[in-house]
Amino acid sequence: MKNLILFAHPNPASFSAGVKEAVSELLKSQGEEVIVRDLYGINFEPRLSAQDFQSFQQGNIPADIAAEQGFISQSDRIIIIFPTWWSGMPAILKGYIDRVLSYGFAYKMGANGPEALLKGKKAVIITPQGTPAEIYEPNGFYKSFEVTQDIGIFNYCGIEVSKHFNLAAVTSVDDATRKSYIEQVTSFFKN
Amino acid sequence: MKNLILFAHPNPASFSAGVKEAVSELLKSQGEEVIVRDLYGINFEPRLSAQDFQSFQQGNIPADIAAEQGFISQSDRIIIIFPTWWSGMPAILKGYIDRVLSYGFAYKMGANGPEALLKGKKAVIITPQGTPAEIYEPNGFYKSFEVTQDIGIFNYCGIEVSKHFNLAAVTSVDDATRKSYIEQVTSFFKN
Repeated sequence: MKNLILFAHPNPASFSAGVKEAVSELLKSQGEEVIVRDLYGINFEPRLSAQDFQSFQQGNIPADIAAEQGFISQSDRIIIIFPTWWSGMPAILKGYIDRVLSYGFAYKMGANGPEALLKGKKAVIITPQGTPAEIYEPNGFYKSFEVTQDIGIFNYCGIEVSKHFNLAAVTSVDDATRKSYIEQVTSFFKN
Repeated sequence: MKNLILFAHPNPASFSAGVKEAVSELLKSQGEEVIVRDLYGINFEPRLSAQDFQSFQQGNIPADIAAEQGFISQSDRIIIIFPTWWSGMPAILKGYIDRVLSYGFAYKMGANGPEALLKGKKAVIITPQGTPAEIYEPNGFYKSFEVTQDIGIFNYCGIEVSKHFNLAAVTSVDDATRKSYIEQVTSFFKN
């Protein structure tokens, strides 16, 4: 299994980084291929620009986008790890979606509407969040995250989301709970 | 009424830009104050960074964030105009939310949980989108946009969302429909 981890947290000492390390080590220990794209580490440009659109129209893919599309093409499974900020992805990751999942690469328009171009790949979303489940769950946030992320982004490109982990209240739970989150996530990936 | 328009589209000839111009002109014609922050125009930095967090912790607000907070503080109404990309805001706007609505400015933690710090302000969301209503509506997207934007962002800071315009299928409808969208939006703002 070729895994691509998209990681988007500015702090290498964060809980999100801990999750990324744990998942990455487990997969490697199972002999799986793991490529980590640390979006802050590479200072990924998130602004889809007029120049990007112009390049696409001329049939040229900007180099930084082409490189990321290469990583996606070569992967069987994309694991996206990010803190939920304001009910969504950090801008650096949203910009990765905006720029890298471009027309002609991730989808195109066919005679019968949009056609998904990344069929056969799987995704796993893992997102620590400060808000407790008691607030998010009854107010429809988890469902909305599924609609705007799983369905609105990944399924649209033909990518099946195997699992969406909302790791709740990470800033206020105790260490044992945080540890149980890591175990929960890693056991999902165990062969 | 002091209006702040947050505008996030890279193309000045876009329909989104047309909406922004129409709203801005109407408000000015009514003698209202209008400040437009064109996020692409100012090349706003959307990446909330480790350095930003460090500055916040030291009680310093980075200059570009402080400037935007000033515009928000002085406004009665915030009008957010952006194309819906991948079920959300363009990264440049999501990054504005991530960075400008900072702890201590937009909200803080009190004894009884989060406290909103921007009470009394109103917001209007206007977002052209390529997807037709027949796809978005029955699949829960409009509801999810309301949860992740109106409730998850603006209400959290105490800002009431007066109206959320989802302008559907703008890339495929005819000119008369696009014109009717503009009329629909401007009539909302007419005194």
